[in-house]
Amino acid sequence: MKILFIGDVVGSPGRDMVQTYLPKLKEKYRPNVTIINGENAAAGKGITQKIYKQFLEWGAHVITMGNHTWDKKEIFEFIDDANNMIRPANYPEGTPGKGLTFVNINGTEIAVINVQGRTFLPAIDDPFRKVDELIIQARKRTAIIFVDFHAEATSEKQAMGWHLDGKVSAVAGTHTHTQTADERVLPNGTAYITDAGMTGPYDAILGVDREAVLKKFFTSLPVRFEIDKKGRTQLNGLVVTVDEKSGSASKVERILINDDHPFID
Amino acid sequence: MKILFIGDVVGSPGRDMVQTYLPKLKEKYRPNVTIINGENAAAGKGITQKIYKQFLEWGAHVITMGNHTWDKKEIFEFIDDANNMIRPANYPEGTPGKGLTFVNINGTEIAVINVQGRTFLPAIDDPFRKVDELIIQARKRTAIIFVDFHAEATSEKQAMGWHLDGKVSAVAGTHTHTQTADERVLPNGTAYITDAGMTGPYDAILGVDREAVLKKFFTSLPVRFEIDKKGRTQLNGLVVTVDEKSGSASKVERILINDDHPFID
Amino acid sequence: MKILFIGDVVGSPGRDMVQTYLPKLKEKYRPNVTIINGENAAAGKGITQKIYKQFLEWGAHVITMGNHTWDKKEIFEFIDDANNMIRPANYPEGTPGKGLTFVNINGTEIAVINVQGRTFLPAIDDPFRKVDELIIQARKRTAIIFVDFHAEATSEKQAMGWHLDGKVSAVAGTHTHTQTADERVLPNGTAYITDAGMTGPYDAILGVDREAVLKKFFTSLPVRFEIDKKGRTQLNGLVVTVDEKSGSASKVERILINDDHPFID
Amino acid sequence: MKILFIGDVVGSPGRDMVQTYLPKLKEKYRPNVTIINGENAAAGKGITQKIYKQFLEWGAHVITMGNHTWDKKEIFEFIDDANNMIRPANYPEGTPGKGLTFVNINGTEIAVINVQGRTFLPAIDDPFRKVDELIIQARKRTAIIFVDFHAEATSEKQAMGWHLDGKVSAVAGTHTHTQTADERVLPNGTAYITDAGMTGPYDAILGVDREAVLKKFFTSLPVRFEIDKKGRTQLNGLVVTVDEKSGSASKVERILINDDHPFID
Ligand SMILES: [Fe+2]
Ligand SMILES: [Fe+2]
Ligand SMILES: [Fe+2]
Ligand SMILES: [Fe+2]
Ligand SMILES: [Fe+2]
Ligand SMILES: [Fe+2]
Ligand SMILES: [Fe+2]
Ligand SMILES: [Fe+2]
Repeated sequence: MKILFIGDVVGSPGRDMVQTYLPKLKEKYRPNVTIINGENAAAGKGITQKIYKQFLEWGAHVITMGNHTWDKKEIFEFIDDANNMIRPANYPEGTPGKGLTFVNINGTEIAVINVQGRTFLPAIDDPFRKVDELIIQARKRTAIIFVDFHAEATSEKQAMGWHLDGKVSAVAGTHTHTQTADERVLPNGTAYITDAGMTGPYDAILGVDREAVLKKFFTSLPVRFEIDKKGRTQLNGLVVTVDEKSGSASKVERILINDDHPFID
Repeated sequence: MKILFIGDVVGSPGRDMVQTYLPKLKEKYRPNVTIINGENAAAGKGITQKIYKQFLEWGAHVITMGNHTWDKKEIFEFIDDANNMIRPANYPEGTPGKGLTFVNINGTEIAVINVQGRTFLPAIDDPFRKVDELIIQARKRTAIIFVDFHAEATSEKQAMGWHLDGKVSAVAGTHTHTQTADERVLPNGTAYITDAGMTGPYDAILGVDREAVLKKFFTSLPVRFEIDKKGRTQLNGLVVTVDEKSGSASKVERILINDDHPFID
Repeated sequence: MKILFIGDVVGSPGRDMVQTYLPKLKEKYRPNVTIINGENAAAGKGITQKIYKQFLEWGAHVITMGNHTWDKKEIFEFIDDANNMIRPANYPEGTPGKGLTFVNINGTEIAVINVQGRTFLPAIDDPFRKVDELIIQARKRTAIIFVDFHAEATSEKQAMGWHLDGKVSAVAGTHTHTQTADERVLPNGTAYITDAGMTGPYDAILGVDREAVLKKFFTSLPVRFEIDKKGRTQLNGLVVTVDEKSGSASKVERILINDDHPFID
Repeated sequence: MKILFIGDVVGSPGRDMVQTYLPKLKEKYRPNVTIINGENAAAGKGITQKIYKQFLEWGAHVITMGNHTWDKKEIFEFIDDANNMIRPANYPEGTPGKGLTFVNINGTEIAVINVQGRTFLPAIDDPFRKVDELIIQARKRTAIIFVDFHAEATSEKQAMGWHLDGKVSAVAGTHTHTQTADERVLPNGTAYITDAGMTGPYDAILGVDREAVLKKFFTSLPVRFEIDKKGRTQLNGLVVTVDEKSGSASKVERILINDDHPFID
């Protein structure tokens, strides 16, 4: 079975790329499940219920989130009813939403987990212990487990990959908005990439208008960050091939669509 | 002309990869200049004079460094005489060593600059203003300028790339030990990659024995980090093709050598 | 001569305390110069021109700032004309405003300097080198120099105190909103305190409504911080006695006014 | 009943101050219980079994620790048998040692808890939830509970104070090595101070030789920090008066002994 994962979708440029290319990617790779990281889908800051539903209509099965989960206030009104949305599981007990969900595709269950790193990010609960807990839960129902590890530091992400090698089907990093070239299947059968990358502006800095970001670095003054809507766009993601019985990955391919790497049927 | 760059060489596993593959890479790509980031060459922590000289013997022209420059005490004894070694230029005035050097290859000069980011790293001088200063100096002698930007945050690195687009031949990120897949020639002719990656252990975490790193994440107790010497190895780098007159880059290729991506002649 | 310094004034509770107690403090201590840190004077976030003028009317001679200098947008419209306001001097060249000013009291000049730390705070220029530069400038006109070092880490603040011992009349820390008990005259004649404290709410957390801060620590979710306006209030500050000729301090007294330490004439 | 608390003892200068002044303080204040923070007792880095035993011999009942708990390797050999030593309770499950202990003084039990903050410090478990858990445990045996909150940020420390107001007898902050002047009994009967301060060198920076610390700030190069053994010394602490039945504090006094504040019988 195949799992398609699309990295942090940023604003309308990112959503437009999903709408345009998801059908083409589905035709090309024929994934059984599609997962989208949507933490920046609403103008870079969180997600709305409307966008969440759009993603599902366009063919996504699960939406994962990250440190931007809470940016749009309306999230608190719909997250508990959004069955196919997960937020980092290691926010403390009592946090709205959940960090593990299951999708049933023609009788086969796929578990999807979202956890968040703590290096260079706010101190929440331990993602390593939390993911271990959720994997125990997930394994009761399925061997196919996909983990979106939303984290900044390459050390923490690779530590998670190695820690979960042989325990889950795939660990895909998100959050840095920059696709890494280190995708591989680890020795015990877990597909891994440090960061799946970002879907949105191609001529910007992590999706944000580059003049603003440069002004910030040059002046240290407050700057308003806006999503770059005038430049070109890109889509970043991943396709993982998983053995349905064992849950082991046999293959992982990066997806990179932009003017320098045009989509090929 | 072609510039070959090799990402952070880590310990003896990294040095062995350089010794083995540098001749093959030179044969394959025929670079005019070879630059190596050596900040972790001595057991992961800095560099010794012996290793520095070895790199030059093996065919490197310039060694760049980073936040680990000062890990080996002997650096203070030889850095001022090491003409072909540069350390981040934005350490404060009075710091031993230099951040800009020139190589003369058959009458053509190439400037190499090393600067260090400040996001998630110690507060030193402004790398953006510093690099601007050094580029003015460098341009008096040559249009071919290679910048190793040693930084953690993808935002700061991409900001540097866009800031220098059209002003230098290439901006190659280092420090995260994880190659990114975003290599490109920016619109005004600057080759860019967020991180060139790491040369050393392939089955470790940033080069470090993974049991130790995992123990650190699980316990928060002090842990001794050792370079993994028992596992497989990799080499990460970059080849940039530059127009000798204008200094503009026309092409940038990632180099990734490991068991999953074996070297091809 | 005596210098009165009042620590970070927070919102209307803080301004009310200044209005009420500044006359009483002037009567009690008879300071020649009054300096107020006003970085949180406007509802906790920056300062407005109106508040700045009020402080001067109430008898302040210089207003110092900090990392919150830029929170109110109107600052950019009046800071360059606000002769008696200084912001941290080590913001990069080209930043609006200035970091050193002089007050003339009956023919005696007093220099006031504002610098900002970098430990646990944004990376700006080096405060140690910057302060050294400004002291050279100041000494051309006067030996009486007061430094407001706006910083988080006790190590950086004490380092600044010792570094400037014998070079300035006083180093008063600000920013942590918590008065320290370590006021002293250092061996070479510089009055020092790690933090002068905060003027504003007494039953809050750094001036902020404590329910909101606790919610933040318990949930890691976004929380709106409001100044506590319902509780009791306090004033924190310092009086330094300085020899007019040499600029040396002979005495430093903490001022702490709250329900547990009522003002005594 | 009275509880005497002595802030972070640093190296031999700190231990000498304890040996000299603990008898005098006991005579002056007649405390029923004495608690010492010993995380820097062994040359600034951790504690040894010998020093731990010395502290008990000199009259301490409980030794609390902090982020430096693990600096001396021998800690792992004796911490599990050191009944009167506690380390921050919110290190993850499985960490050697414990974070809560009880002392029995003539039939009256006193609970002592050690927790560590996460702002500007490593990400461990949530100190707020952890302290709540331990208080439930402690209250089963006694109403007299003393909390050493080892943390950097004034916001986190004050948040802890307000959170525990009415639930414990006292919250004393440690770690910044700088005594604050904000000691008070909070409205519901909890004695509070943001930081009890440091016991050790008086003419140093947090106990460390000031030339080394200044070199660090000026150069950003690696520097060896040594405890200042040549300068004068100080002792910082706190005495809390607690109602034995209710556990409520009625009074909190700072102790500050140095050349500027000599000990008075
Ligand atoms: Fe994101
Ligand atoms: Fe994120
Ligand atoms: Fe490195
Ligand atoms: Fe590095
Ligand atoms: Fe403030
Ligand atoms: Fe501040
Ligand atoms: Fe300490
Ligand atoms: Fe500490």
